Amino acid sequence: MSDFYQGRRVLITGGLGFIGSNLAIELQQRGARLTLLDSMIPAYGACIENIEPIRDAVTVNFSDVRDQHSLTYLVRDQEVIFSLAGQVSHLDSMHEPLVDLDINCRSQLSLLECCRRENPDVRLVLASTRQIYGKPRFLPVTEDHPIAPTDINGINKWAAEMYFTLYAQVYGMSTVSLRLTNTYGPRMDLRNSKKGFVGVFIQQALSGQAIRIFGTGLQRRDFNYVSDVTQALALVGASRDHHGASFNLGHDEHFTLREFVETLSEHCPVQFEIIPFPDELRAIDIGDYYADYSKFRAATGWRPQVGLDEGLQRTMQFYGHAKETAA
Amino acid sequence: MSDFYQGRRVLITGGLGFIGSNLAIELQQRGARLTLLDSMIPAYGACIENIEPIRDAVTVNFSDVRDQHSLTYLVRDQEVIFSLAGQVSHLDSMHEPLVDLDINCRSQLSLLECCRRENPDVRLVLASTRQIYGKPRFLPVTEDHPIAPTDINGINKWAAEMYFTLYAQVYGMSTVSLRLTNTYGPRMDLRNSKKGFVGVFIQQALSGQAIRIFGTGLQRRDFNYVSDVTQALALVGASRDHHGASFNLGHDEHFTLREFVETLSEHCPVQFEIIPFPDELRAIDIGDYYADYSKFRAATGWRPQVGLDEGLQRTMQFYGHAKETAA
Repeated sequence: MSDFYQGRRVLITGGLGFIGSNLAIELQQRGARLTLLDSMIPAYGACIENIEPIRDAVTVNFSDVRDQHSLTYLVRDQEVIFSLAGQVSHLDSMHEPLVDLDINCRSQLSLLECCRRENPDVRLVLASTRQIYGKPRFLPVTEDHPIAPTDINGINKWAAEMYFTLYAQVYGMSTVSLRLTNTYGPRMDLRNSKKGFVGVFIQQALSGQAIRIFGTGLQRRDFNYVSDVTQALALVGASRDHHGASFNLGHDEHFTLREFVETLSEHCPVQFEIIPFPDELRAIDIGDYYADYSKFRAATGWRPQVGLDEGLQRTMQFYGHAKETAA
Repeated sequence: MSDFYQGRRVLITGGLGFIGSNLAIELQQRGARLTLLDSMIPAYGACIENIEPIRDAVTVNFSDVRDQHSLTYLVRDQEVIFSLAGQVSHLDSMHEPLVDLDINCRSQLSLLECCRRENPDVRLVLASTRQIYGKPRFLPVTEDHPIAPTDINGINKWAAEMYFTLYAQVYGMSTVSLRLTNTYGPRMDLRNSKKGFVGVFIQQALSGQAIRIFGTGLQRRDFNYVSDVTQALALVGASRDHHGASFNLGHDEHFTLREFVETLSEHCPVQFEIIPFPDELRAIDIGDYYADYSKFRAATGWRPQVGLDEGLQRTMQFYGHAKETAA
């Protein structure tokens, strides 16, 4: 893969967001000719500072994936498209379900249609989510686990994934979906408290607040450092294989939320408290989750390289809070 | 159930279509106070003649389920809502996938949102489809069969069903989905050749054309006469049970397409020929399908009452072609 991206035309939707900007920085270093599409909707995590290291080396296109006309033009001549633009708050998807549908479901179908018409040979990579499985019925969760989302976001993301698979099956287009689990690292959105506990916890730690863990603190999760995720995306973007397939990402290590916070506190001292779930969060909580990513490992050789301790250390360094070593 | 509908306020979306109008006629006879919503989109099968027997006894509201503002008003004060409005052509869903999404997926979510805000106690019944299963991996197909639609219509209908289930789980709303198989009978749309082979075959028989069976003619299916389907809908509409559940309809008898045509020819003499699948239909064909409806039978006692021979006889009588008895 190392040379694949040299000179390639690559479009990243959501390219100024958390994962999109990290992917852009990685692919720019590998010589890709990048276009980054972003709607810049304030709550969704994009910011221009995210791409500061590569600002002059990439084309930025401010537009919304709901806008089919601009999309039609943007997909032309691209060799790889990473579809990362999305509404990612589970809670917002319940408050504004039709907005979530338009962004996470309708826009993905619209993207596929644009590509089918304008550029059917493009490689298309979808960032999907573990949220589609709902509350796990067995652990670790394999790709064959029943699909039973507990929120609108999960349903819409699942529909999007099915569109991607269908366009491979029916039209022979080159699509693939990665089901991301909890991703963390530099450039994650710490301003929006509705985007998952990892960002909330890091923000609370950085601001010196006590971390509030809902439930028991014993919910178990797997965590991927963002460079492992961008590595996985780059891998499948550089391939024509995996015809319409979906793969779990994951990690060999699993941690309880309490262990996560304890590891975090190694790099940024922080208090925490364990409190009952608010009702509206309990209704969509999924309990323990960790994935079996062996299907993806077998297909590509990918393994996560960064453990939680190292990943949180790098994250806190990025945000300017290096570990205070006891002298 | 016999008295349940007496004086009840009932809304049927797609109320002037094939199944909607048959349901309306049945519920009107049971004393329901009916509002029939229909967009009257020409290709979708609605026509005012379908409700000729009850025209003066019901309220007809011409509007589109994509129009959230009218829907908001229409759901108020209803006790039961049957959500039957839909785009049902698999082929059209591939040609105009975003239209299919807006009607079959987005409008269902919009309906649920309207009800959640305006009328959360209403009973909501969704007409879903066997199409969500895709190509059966085992027969008969149970509700636990993997969901793997082979077309956009199947994906969008599946998303709709998941919304219905989710609104029961999260908000405690009273929703249920029935997964219909091939339904036939009076008032089915014979003008549109894209709405499944049953209507096409009947139209070809009525017009004296040779019936063209794609594939081998040995594809096996189950067929529900429309009065059995409206009976099933009325049953679940009259209940508060089955919290967000989904049920297959089906039939104890299964027939090959060739047997279907042979039975049809008993009531309307017709020639037939077996020809290869056109490419775009082969891509979304599902092969054999018949459902296990025992879950629904156990829950409600429903069983289909009308066999294929009787059902086709009644259908052809409705269309004015009574069997020519050899004298």
